[in-house]
Amino acid sequence: MSIQIPRGTQDILPGVVERWQYVEEKARNLCKRFNYKEIRTPIFEHTELFLRSVGDTTDIVQREMYTFTDRGDRSLTLRPEGTASTVRAYVENKMYGLPDQPTKLYYMGPMFRYERPQSGRYRQFVQFGIEALGSADPAIDAEVISLAMAMYQELGLKKLKLIINSLGDQESRSAHRTALTGHFAPNIKELCSDCQNRLETNPLRILDCKKDREHPLMKTAPSILDYLNEESVLYFKKVQQYLSAMGIEYQVDSRLVRGLDYYSHTAFEIMSDAEGFGAITTLMGGGRYNGLAQEIGGPDTPGIGFALSIERLLLALEAEGIDLPISKGIDCYVVALGEKAKDVSISLVNELRKANLTVEKDYLDKKIKAQFKAADRLEAQFVVVLGDDELERNSASIKNLKTGNQEEISLNEISTFLLENKEK
Amino acid sequence: MSIQIPRGTQDILPGVVERWQYVEEKARNLCKRFNYKEIRTPIFEHTELFLRSVGDTTDIVQREMYTFTDRGDRSLTLRPEGTASTVRAYVENKMYGLPDQPTKLYYMGPMFRYERPQSGRYRQFVQFGIEALGSADPAIDAEVISLAMAMYQELGLKKLKLIINSLGDQESRSAHRTALTGHFAPNIKELCSDCQNRLETNPLRILDCKKDREHPLMKTAPSILDYLNEESVLYFKKVQQYLSAMGIEYQVDSRLVRGLDYYSHTAFEIMSDAEGFGAITTLMGGGRYNGLAQEIGGPDTPGIGFALSIERLLLALEAEGIDLPISKGIDCYVVALGEKAKDVSISLVNELRKANLTVEKDYLDKKIKAQFKAADRLEAQFVVVLGDDELERNSASIKNLKTGNQEEISLNEISTFLLENKEK
Repeated sequence: MSIQIPRGTQDILPGVVERWQYVEEKARNLCKRFNYKEIRTPIFEHTELFLRSVGDTTDIVQREMYTFTDRGDRSLTLRPEGTASTVRAYVENKMYGLPDQPTKLYYMGPMFRYERPQSGRYRQFVQFGIEALGSADPAIDAEVISLAMAMYQELGLKKLKLIINSLGDQESRSAHRTALTGHFAPNIKELCSDCQNRLETNPLRILDCKKDREHPLMKTAPSILDYLNEESVLYFKKVQQYLSAMGIEYQVDSRLVRGLDYYSHTAFEIMSDAEGFGAITTLMGGGRYNGLAQEIGGPDTPGIGFALSIERLLLALEAEGIDLPISKGIDCYVVALGEKAKDVSISLVNELRKANLTVEKDYLDKKIKAQFKAADRLEAQFVVVLGDDELERNSASIKNLKTGNQEEISLNEISTFLLENKEK
Repeated sequence: MSIQIPRGTQDILPGVVERWQYVEEKARNLCKRFNYKEIRTPIFEHTELFLRSVGDTTDIVQREMYTFTDRGDRSLTLRPEGTASTVRAYVENKMYGLPDQPTKLYYMGPMFRYERPQSGRYRQFVQFGIEALGSADPAIDAEVISLAMAMYQELGLKKLKLIINSLGDQESRSAHRTALTGHFAPNIKELCSDCQNRLETNPLRILDCKKDREHPLMKTAPSILDYLNEESVLYFKKVQQYLSAMGIEYQVDSRLVRGLDYYSHTAFEIMSDAEGFGAITTLMGGGRYNGLAQEIGGPDTPGIGFALSIERLLLALEAEGIDLPISKGIDCYVVALGEKAKDVSISLVNELRKANLTVEKDYLDKKIKAQFKAADRLEAQFVVVLGDDELERNSASIKNLKTGNQEEISLNEISTFLLENKEK
């Protein structure tokens, strides 16, 4: 009996993987221009890290983590997101002591959440994210947002909507929390049991509730924006001013909140309203998290970042019908028949590949006609034919499959000929 | 208290990660030229896959796997190597039915083995591997070996030793097995208890024993090369002939064996005898595995591949003192002082990055002098200074840090100027 792939995961095969390579290369190129450097952290971490950073009352921690005990009896968890690991590495490696600050990092790799698999949602998915640690300048908030927008825009997406909000500093959030409690407490019985718990633990998260989204109490809930103190108002204004200076359009939506204590000031999301999605869809989210480094055992450090799912980005490209300019085709296919030609083909193919050409040959003892068909399928620009007559003259015939031109070239001049005549 | 990285794993940080990026890019480029396409399989698989493919009597399966039960009560294992997953994906996605055969694939990503951590050996490590499925032509064996050699050679490594051997076809291995049993059985008590078990289960693996390596019985053990049937001899001869045609030097070593039933014909290893390693070190290994696809539930399919550890490759580069040509430095640092200059700097930096330039600015309200220092540290080629006087004329002064030249340029011509004057 054959063995299947684990439920909720996918193989990414040739023909599709090129799209992944393309958008990942775009992400790397953007990070280079914005001077964000790659960091790679392990696939698993001590479970404790996520309890402290993601928060032990969240869905992720309560229901979705891949947690296991290793042979040394440690509780490990496959990372469900990238920020916690990045900040753990920042603290553990004392990167706050490096001369170049803020520390600007990016990561790209698989994350794991045990969720019900559905279209575009996998238990293993790939996140690209950036984190800027060590600056509380609203200009870096604007930079982080601008990199996120550029990622989508430079790939050709148009139906984008940037939503921003401010959660303010601790004082502002505290005032807002009191107001929220006052607003919800008298009628909390009308809301779901989760919300009733949240009233005690974290009333801000009531606003995130999926069940009670349409309840009238939600619409009349006090807005964080009415509780920002002067400093927080100024900070938020600056972020908006800088976004405008870069020509980035945005909408302020005070319902965009994040429930964890260390989130502060800027929060943002990019949505797509491409028709292909049916409904408006969140592509990514990010925000400022002053306090996370300290929560993990490091110094008090301001930070801001975002994470986006490559899967959803690819869906958005499909929804807008965008063709990525992925180059196809090989430079040359070497056709050979008979033992002698085969021997020559092996050294020739090797030589051409060394000369930086993309070259293929037959490995199934196919007839000449089938070899030509293979060359066509691989969209070869040239076919080199090693025929008996030409081989006696130490040469081969080269056919340009696009123009149909054919000429005889000496064996030791083939690589030069191809390098000079190939497209691009 | 701060949270540490899990034992046996590592963070790969900026300053080091560039070496990883460089060698991985080399691997991708080589695969492109050789027409191997990337495949991405999940980080974990059903445990059963590795029991069947890696073999349930191996160290990996018995002692080193990260196996756990997910929330749906499935036994999953973090992949300890890449071939099993690749062949599982090949079978499950019926890639044998695609028009282009053989199916030539590569993978690159983390693998997991619970081993005692030591220098250069991690519990999470990165493997680059290729697999060619669907051809039993000795020419593809030679191609796979040539790609492996090119990977090391093109990075500049010189102290390489290619070892090859043949395990023959099933008939040959069967004859050899009988000879091995006859050789070891009379004195098996002199060998370790593992070897005593192997005599029953798989006498070939006795030759792999680390404890009894120096025992006289090992040196006099029958060589597989003396038991190859005619077809297997011919196959091995062809592989060697093709390697020679490509100018690849090799040594035949009949002690290079692999214990699993589905290994057949070509086996190879590349070693380094660079002085930096102290002793000769195996960098990578590969071989033919006709029968593995069938073991996993697919059709009977010939296959050959290799896997190499990026960690060990990087150690080899260090051991030979090879500097990778990693480009450093940014194109431009934008220096600004005061609110107005800062506002301008934000839109200018954004514009320059859009123009494909690598640009940085200050996010810590540093003084002018400290901003220049940062530009130096980042090896900026140009510094753009936004001064009050120049801003009034809608311009900025640009200094080339390498030549010391300085000139005043209109703000809207800065990107053109930098694109024209920057070093490639």
